[in-house]
Amino acid sequence: MDVIKVPVVEEILSANDQLAVANRELLDANKVFGVNIMSSPGSGKTSTIVATQERLKDSLRLGMVDGDIATTIDADRAAEAGMQAVQINTGGNCHLDAVMVSQGIRSLKLEDLDLMIIENVGNLICPSSFKLGTHISVLIASVPEGADKPYKYPPMYRGVDAVIINKIDVLPYFDFDMDYFVKGVEMLNPGVKSFPISNKTGEGLDAWADWLYEQVAAYQQSAAE
Amino acid sequence: MDVIKVPVVEEILSANDQLAVANRELLDANKVFGVNIMSSPGSGKTSTIVATQERLKDSLRLGMVDGDIATTIDADRAAEAGMQAVQINTGGNCHLDAVMVSQGIRSLKLEDLDLMIIENVGNLICPSSFKLGTHISVLIASVPEGADKPYKYPPMYRGVDAVIINKIDVLPYFDFDMDYFVKGVEMLNPGVKSFPISNKTGEGLDAWADWLYEQVAAYQQSAAE
Repeated sequence: MDVIKVPVVEEILSANDQLAVANRELLDANKVFGVNIMSSPGSGKTSTIVATQERLKDSLRLGMVDGDIATTIDADRAAEAGMQAVQINTGGNCHLDAVMVSQGIRSLKLEDLDLMIIENVGNLICPSSFKLGTHISVLIASVPEGADKPYKYPPMYRGVDAVIINKIDVLPYFDFDMDYFVKGVEMLNPGVKSFPISNKTGEGLDAWADWLYEQVAAYQQSAAE
Repeated sequence: MDVIKVPVVEEILSANDQLAVANRELLDANKVFGVNIMSSPGSGKTSTIVATQERLKDSLRLGMVDGDIATTIDADRAAEAGMQAVQINTGGNCHLDAVMVSQGIRSLKLEDLDLMIIENVGNLICPSSFKLGTHISVLIASVPEGADKPYKYPPMYRGVDAVIINKIDVLPYFDFDMDYFVKGVEMLNPGVKSFPISNKTGEGLDAWADWLYEQVAAYQQSAAE
């Protein structure tokens, strides 16, 4: 007798993914564009978010959900910059998941926002496995980490919509092979948008902020139609 | 009726911890001193291990067990430097555990080693939760990551026997508040040994290698008694 084959395997969403869908629906109901920013510890997530706020605050209303295993240092910086900011302390957990983000989103006044940026826990591995419900995700690499990171952490590089390369002001002081880095990124994620920036000098930040603004504008326009 | 109280709760070791004990016994049977090195991605674990080999190779025989989610880049560098080197690809796993290390150790010729250094997966969170069976563990921080890392990643800083601060050659180019960093480390791990180093200039590496040599010598002396 032949083994019975199931002709259609329905995709059963995990509990996390189900909640990620609910997060997305809540954002969409309020026409808020969500961005999940991930990186190693100390690559410059908070600095980039604050710089983004400075560039977009006259045209968009930004909020931030920050995940850290301890302290409110990062959310404090975002709040000082004038953003609605929520801190989630993960209690040792190495990533944000859709449950934590759900609580974070519900603490924000979504009707007063156009763009919600999630700063994930500093970790180049675990966050890539957890959907949060955002519309795009962005990875921040940085020059001091070295050009081999795409090769060593492929799942993170594979899944993102944009790659920011921060701290380009210190390129002269590091043996960072940009061609090797870009080759690795392209291999894993062909055609992904990339933005070399420096939060110290401001270089490249306008290009990043302009691109992000375009994403939000296109989203809001399609939501209005 | 009163609830029966169990007067002594025996400590039940987790499967990982049991295997960590077995790893330690295997190292001890061969008089091999084990070191677990942890850090963020790109803080300089491999560079520090290679520099340690260069400084100690005339007095000690070094081996390396390297954990990465992909590639053999790091183990190749250690092997080129003349170390016995084993690569463990964790297949996406964010840390090494005692099972993986057990396999790694058994791939080395332990009778030909004095010192085995484990290079953990680049991650400032998850590796701190898994004992591997080494005699000491060492954290490598680096200047570009920023001085707030002890505050944000306390479990990692709390559990280690030494803290290396790498990339001090670029201190002039970063706003790194060393006093704030040291204060955070001291708060979490009072009296922990710390070594400011630069793998680029070589500064501080002799002090680190000398200290490590002393640890191995003291271990071997007590093992011989």
